Amino acid sequence: MSGSIFGKMFRISTFGESHGEALGVVVDGCPSNISITLEDIMKNMDRRKPGNAKIGTSRNEADLVEILSGTFEGKTTGTPIALLIRNTNQRSGDYSKIKDIYRPSHADYTFDQKYGFRDYRGGGRSSGRETAARVAAGSIAKLFLKELGIHVTAYTRSIGSIAVTDEAFSFKEISENPVSMPSNETANKALALIAKARENKDSIGGTVECVVTGLKPGIGETVFDKLDATLAYAIMGIGGVKAFEVGEGIHASKMYGSDYNDAFCIQNGKISKRTNHSGGILGGMSDGSDIFIKAHFKPTPSIASPQNTVTTQLEETTIEILGRHDPVIVPRAVVVVESMVAIALADLILCDLGSNLETIKRLYHQ
Amino acid sequence: MSGSIFGKMFRISTFGESHGEALGVVVDGCPSNISITLEDIMKNMDRRKPGNAKIGTSRNEADLVEILSGTFEGKTTGTPIALLIRNTNQRSGDYSKIKDIYRPSHADYTFDQKYGFRDYRGGGRSSGRETAARVAAGSIAKLFLKELGIHVTAYTRSIGSIAVTDEAFSFKEISENPVSMPSNETANKALALIAKARENKDSIGGTVECVVTGLKPGIGETVFDKLDATLAYAIMGIGGVKAFEVGEGIHASKMYGSDYNDAFCIQNGKISKRTNHSGGILGGMSDGSDIFIKAHFKPTPSIASPQNTVTTQLEETTIEILGRHDPVIVPRAVVVVESMVAIALADLILCDLGSNLETIKRLYHQ
Amino acid sequence: MSGSIFGKMFRISTFGESHGEALGVVVDGCPSNISITLEDIMKNMDRRKPGNAKIGTSRNEADLVEILSGTFEGKTTGTPIALLIRNTNQRSGDYSKIKDIYRPSHADYTFDQKYGFRDYRGGGRSSGRETAARVAAGSIAKLFLKELGIHVTAYTRSIGSIAVTDEAFSFKEISENPVSMPSNETANKALALIAKARENKDSIGGTVECVVTGLKPGIGETVFDKLDATLAYAIMGIGGVKAFEVGEGIHASKMYGSDYNDAFCIQNGKISKRTNHSGGILGGMSDGSDIFIKAHFKPTPSIASPQNTVTTQLEETTIEILGRHDPVIVPRAVVVVESMVAIALADLILCDLGSNLETIKRLYHQ
Amino acid sequence: MSGSIFGKMFRISTFGESHGEALGVVVDGCPSNISITLEDIMKNMDRRKPGNAKIGTSRNEADLVEILSGTFEGKTTGTPIALLIRNTNQRSGDYSKIKDIYRPSHADYTFDQKYGFRDYRGGGRSSGRETAARVAAGSIAKLFLKELGIHVTAYTRSIGSIAVTDEAFSFKEISENPVSMPSNETANKALALIAKARENKDSIGGTVECVVTGLKPGIGETVFDKLDATLAYAIMGIGGVKAFEVGEGIHASKMYGSDYNDAFCIQNGKISKRTNHSGGILGGMSDGSDIFIKAHFKPTPSIASPQNTVTTQLEETTIEILGRHDPVIVPRAVVVVESMVAIALADLILCDLGSNLETIKRLYHQ
Repeated sequence: MSGSIFGKMFRISTFGESHGEALGVVVDGCPSNISITLEDIMKNMDRRKPGNAKIGTSRNEADLVEILSGTFEGKTTGTPIALLIRNTNQRSGDYSKIKDIYRPSHADYTFDQKYGFRDYRGGGRSSGRETAARVAAGSIAKLFLKELGIHVTAYTRSIGSIAVTDEAFSFKEISENPVSMPSNETANKALALIAKARENKDSIGGTVECVVTGLKPGIGETVFDKLDATLAYAIMGIGGVKAFEVGEGIHASKMYGSDYNDAFCIQNGKISKRTNHSGGILGGMSDGSDIFIKAHFKPTPSIASPQNTVTTQLEETTIEILGRHDPVIVPRAVVVVESMVAIALADLILCDLGSNLETIKRLYHQ
Repeated sequence: MSGSIFGKMFRISTFGESHGEALGVVVDGCPSNISITLEDIMKNMDRRKPGNAKIGTSRNEADLVEILSGTFEGKTTGTPIALLIRNTNQRSGDYSKIKDIYRPSHADYTFDQKYGFRDYRGGGRSSGRETAARVAAGSIAKLFLKELGIHVTAYTRSIGSIAVTDEAFSFKEISENPVSMPSNETANKALALIAKARENKDSIGGTVECVVTGLKPGIGETVFDKLDATLAYAIMGIGGVKAFEVGEGIHASKMYGSDYNDAFCIQNGKISKRTNHSGGILGGMSDGSDIFIKAHFKPTPSIASPQNTVTTQLEETTIEILGRHDPVIVPRAVVVVESMVAIALADLILCDLGSNLETIKRLYHQ
Repeated sequence: MSGSIFGKMFRISTFGESHGEALGVVVDGCPSNISITLEDIMKNMDRRKPGNAKIGTSRNEADLVEILSGTFEGKTTGTPIALLIRNTNQRSGDYSKIKDIYRPSHADYTFDQKYGFRDYRGGGRSSGRETAARVAAGSIAKLFLKELGIHVTAYTRSIGSIAVTDEAFSFKEISENPVSMPSNETANKALALIAKARENKDSIGGTVECVVTGLKPGIGETVFDKLDATLAYAIMGIGGVKAFEVGEGIHASKMYGSDYNDAFCIQNGKISKRTNHSGGILGGMSDGSDIFIKAHFKPTPSIASPQNTVTTQLEETTIEILGRHDPVIVPRAVVVVESMVAIALADLILCDLGSNLETIKRLYHQ
Repeated sequence: MSGSIFGKMFRISTFGESHGEALGVVVDGCPSNISITLEDIMKNMDRRKPGNAKIGTSRNEADLVEILSGTFEGKTTGTPIALLIRNTNQRSGDYSKIKDIYRPSHADYTFDQKYGFRDYRGGGRSSGRETAARVAAGSIAKLFLKELGIHVTAYTRSIGSIAVTDEAFSFKEISENPVSMPSNETANKALALIAKARENKDSIGGTVECVVTGLKPGIGETVFDKLDATLAYAIMGIGGVKAFEVGEGIHASKMYGSDYNDAFCIQNGKISKRTNHSGGILGGMSDGSDIFIKAHFKPTPSIASPQNTVTTQLEETTIEILGRHDPVIVPRAVVVVESMVAIALADLILCDLGSNLETIKRLYHQ
C-alpha cells in the first residue's frame, strides 16, 4: 500500500494503526521561520477528542504530541517536522470477537481482499484514529496560513436532519456547544437526536461546512489540480465522507445561469462579486471571495443493534458491535476537515509562490 | 502553471488552448499489447460533439484525432501514446469584444490574477474544449479496463429540475436521445426545458451519473489515495462541477446507521452486499458492488442576456455573451465524466497490480 | 511503462519512436511571459543534427519543430507548451534483418524482456532519436534560465583518449569545429581518431562537460533532491552515459581534505571560494561558484564489424550492423547534456522560488 | 524545503537533525507479509556505527531503532512502517564556537543562503547522521528484495590511492576488517593511510562499490527513469559523493565499441553475456547480469588543521575543527550505499510488478 503521503510541495506522510505502538506524521516542505508551540498543536488535538460523554466515545485518548524534529528555538527550520503520538490505551481484548467477522460498512472486508491480511484489533490503518496525525499536521499548515492572513474555520452544519439555518447562524457559538454548531439552540436539538440514536443502539450522519477567509485570487491550477479538485481529493480522503460540495454545490445543477452567475462589481476600488454562488472558486482558482465547502459524512458504522453479516469463512452470521463508539462522528470530524483544507491550501500556495516564508508573505500581500 | 498532468502510473499530460493550433494528450504508462483503433477513439470524440442543434453549440468541431506514437501493428507498445487534435475552426474575430471584460462565472478574472496574462480569444486553457484531450485519453483507459471486464458508463441523470426517476430508468435508452438520459420520456421534458432556457437567453445546470461494473474488491488505497478521493479529484477537475457524490452521497448525512449500513451476505458462494448504499466503496477501496458516483454541473456561464460585470480597467459595465454557446453543458459532459473515471481507475489498478497486461489480467481474475 | 515524464514543477513529458509518425514533448509548468521564437528552438535542434559527414550518421533528419500550444503573441502563456517533430525519413526496410536478432549493447533484449514486445524497426523508444524531444524542451528551459542570467554551456571534453587539456582550452573554439571541442587543435586529432574508427568499422566513446554560470547560492534540496543528485538523475537518463562527475569527481576520492576543501574568502564584499573543487555544489545546494559536471559516454553500440550475438529464438549467431550510424555519439550529445541540465535546473528553481517569472526574477536578484 | 521523500511506490520519508530529539523514517508502500525483526534492522545500523577507534569518530551513537507501526505479529502489514532513532548524545556545547563561521566544504553557507537560518549545533539536517534513517529504511528494502532472491552487497573499493585489485579481491574478507574492504591485506594498508591522515590532522576520500545479484532482466524504465539514472539519483543524494559509475564507468568513454560491446551468448539454454562491461544495465533496464556501480566520496570536510574561511558577518578568519570526526567517511558509508541501492531497486520493482508480495514473487520467478 502506498497512498499515505499527501501533497506535492507541502507533503505530509502519516503512519500508525489504532492499536499499534504510535501514530504520527512527517511534514516535509514547511517553510522555515514559522513560530510554533506545542500548545498550538494540542489545542487542535483537543478539539478532536471525545469532549462530551453524551456524544463521544468513552475511550480516553490523551493524544499527547511530541515534536521530534524540524524546529529550533521555537521556530520551524525548513526541515521535516516529525510529530509523534503514542497509543496509550490499546485494549486488544475488546476486539477479539470481531477477528473472524466482517463488520458492515467498515473496511474489514476490502482490506482483507487487498492485503490478504487484517489487523483485527480494530480498524488498524483504516481506523478514524489515523486522523489524529492529520490534525497534528494540519496545525502546522494553519500556522503557516495564519502568517498570510488566511483563516480556515469548520463547524457542524447538520446532524441527521437537524441543520443550522442561515438565520440561526452565529460564528461565536461554534465553540460554545459540544457539537461545534454555529447555533446553541440547534445544537441542543442535535444533542437530543444523538442521545436518541444512542438509546436506540443506532448512529447518525451529518455535515461539516468549512470557510476559508483571506485567500487571494489565483490560487489553484487551471486543469487537473484545480483548487476545488484538490480540496475534494483532500476531503473525500477522510473516512466516512460520501459527498463534497463547493459553493452552491448540488443546488447549482438545478439553477439557471442568470440566477447562478455571480456579477462582478467594484468595491473600494477593487474587483469583487455581488454574490458568492461560486463558493470562492472560478475556473479552479480562488476568486478572492470566501471559500465555502461541505463534507457530508455517513453514520458511524459501528452500532450496537444486531446486523446481518458474514464471517471470513464465508458463513452468514449476525453481529452487535458493543464498546466505545461514537453515535455520530461529525463533531470530532470538524477539526479533521479544517486540517485537510489547510494542508491542501498550504500545498497549492507553495506550488505557486515557492518555499520561502518572507517571499511568500511579500508576494501574497503585494 | 503546472497541473496539466494526471495520475501516478497511468499518467496523462494534456495541452492546448481553445483558439491555438491544436489540443492533445500524451498517455504515459499504458500497458503494452492492448488492441486500439482510431475508431475506438473517434466513437468517444463524437459523443462529446454538439450532436443536436436544439441543445448544442453550433460551432462545428470535427475533432479528428491523429495517433502520433505508442502503437505498432494496431496494438499499444507500452511507450507513450500521443494523440493530436487540430483546431480547425478558430474564429478569433468573434472574441475581440470580450478582450477587456471579465465574463461572470468564467475563469477570465482568476486567470489574469494568476498569470498576469490572458488569452482573450476564448477560454484559452480554461475552455471546455480542453476536455477533448481527456476524452481521447479516456478512450485508451476504457480499452484497458475492457480487457479486465470493467465497464464505465455515464449518462445524464437530471437537467435543471427534470430528473430521471428510478422507475423510468432504462439503460438502453441512453443512446436513443440527444441528452443521453436513460429515459426517452424524461429526455423530451429536458429538451423542452433547454429550448425554453435558450429562448430566454439563459442556461441551465444538471447532473451526470456514472456506473462502473466489473471492478473487483480492493482497488484504491486506504488513506489519502482512497478510490472515492481519487474519483472526486478526477471529477471535480472537470470545469463546472460543483459537487461530487458516491453512493447515497449527501443523503447519507441524514441517515441512521441501521438504515445506511449494507449487510454482507453470501451469494453463489461469494461475499456480497444486500444493498449498495456505499456506492461500491468501503474504507476507500472497491467492495465488489457496482460503483455509483454523481457529478453536479453548474449552468453554462455564457448567456446572451445582459449581465453586470467589470472591465480589466476596473470599470463597471454590462455584457451580453452572444455566439456559439450551449445552454446546457451536461449532455456533452457525459463522456468527459466517463473518461476521467476510466483514467482514475486505470491509474489505481496499475499502482496495485503493476504494469504488465497479461499479469494484471491473471491477477485480476484469480 | 511509465517513466517518460521528468520533473516536479517544470515537467516535461516526451513521446515518440524512431520510426513512428512523430516525436515530441509537452512542457508543463513553464512560467508565463517568456519570449520564445521557433528560431531559438531550431538553433538547438540543428546542433543535435549530424552536421558533418566525417563524423555523423548520413541519415537526414530535418527535425522541424512545430509549436502546438502554450504561446500567444510570441510569449509563453503559462499553459503547457507542446512541441511536435514529424519523422520524415523512416526507411523501415533497412531494419527488417535485425527483427529477430538482439544487437549487442542495445536495448533490444531488455526491452523484449520487459514488454514482451519490440518495435523492431529500430531502437523504437530506446533510440537516440528520442533525445530530439529533450533538446526541444531544453530550449524552453534555457530561455527561462537566460531571463535569470543563468547560462548552461556544454562541450566535448574528450573522444576516446584524445582530451582537451586545460592549457589548450578555448571557449570560443567550441563552435568552430564539428566535434564541439573547446580546442580546434584537439578537435582535429579527435576527427582523425573518429575517421580511423569508422575505417575500422568500429566506434568510440567520449566525455561531455557542462558548465553553468550565474546560478545563485542555495538552489537544490538538502537530502534526496540535492542539486547534484538531480543533475545525475537527468544526465544518467541519457542513453549511453556510464558515469557522472561533479567538480573533482572521481579524483576527489583520492584527495586529502586539506587539498580538497575550498577555502571561503571575501571578494568584492561577497562570500566567494578560492578554489572550486566542489564544482559549485555544497551539501546538495549551489554555492555560488560555477557548476561543473561531466557525462561519460560509452562507444556507439552499432558497429559494422561482425559481433557474436543471439536470436530471439535463442540461437547463437553473428551480426554486422550496417547503415547510418555515428561512429561516435558525443558531439551530437553535447546539446542533449546541456538540455537536461537546463531542464533539471529550471525544475529546482521553480520548486524553490515558485512559478511566477517576475517574482522569480526579483527573488533571484535580490 | 521539500526533498526528504524518495521513491514513487516504495517511498521513504526521513526526518531529524544531528542535534535534535530524534531521527527516523516512514516507509510507505512496503508490501505486506514480509517477515521482519528488530535484529534485521540493528545488524545494518551497527555497520554504520563507528566500529573502530582507529578510524571512526569517538562519538558514541547507540542508534537503537524502535518500530512504531506497520508490523503485526512479526510481519509487515502493508501499512506505513515508522522507525524511530532517539538522539542520546547531543552535546551542543561542542558546537558553539562554529556558530558564526562557515566551515569549508560543509553545507553551512549554502544552508544559510537557502533558509536564512541555520541550526549551528552541527550539520543539522545536512549532517551525515541523517543517513541513519536511510539505513533503517534500507533494511526493510533488503528484506523485501531477499524474498525475490535479490542481494545487494557494498564494500570499500579504495581509500585514497589504496585500492583493492581484482587479484586481491575476496568477498568473504569484507566483514573481516574495520574498513569493509574485500581484502584484509589492502585493508591494512588503508588503515595505515587513515592513521597517517589523522596524525596530520587531515582526512581522505575513497570509493564504495556495490554489486546486485539476482535481478531479473527488464527492471528500470526506458527513458528518464532508467535503472542507472535512478541509482545515480539515489547515490548522488548521499552527502559527499562526487561521482557515480556503472559498469565500465568513466573508462567506457575511452573504449572502442568492438572492445566495449558485450556479446550475447546462450548459457544453460538462457540468454547471457560473455562479458559485463555494461554493469548489468542495457538501455536503462537490467540485463540479467550482476549490477556493478561505484560511489566516489570526497574527503571528510571536518579537519583539525587550520583552514581559511569567513564568518557570517563577512570577515575572513581561520578555523580548526576539533572534536569527534572521522578522518574518512567511506567505511561507514558502505551500508548507506547498500541501503540506497536497495530502496531504489524496491521502488522500481513495485512500479513494474505492483504491490502484492505473492504476485511479485510469482512474476519474478516465472
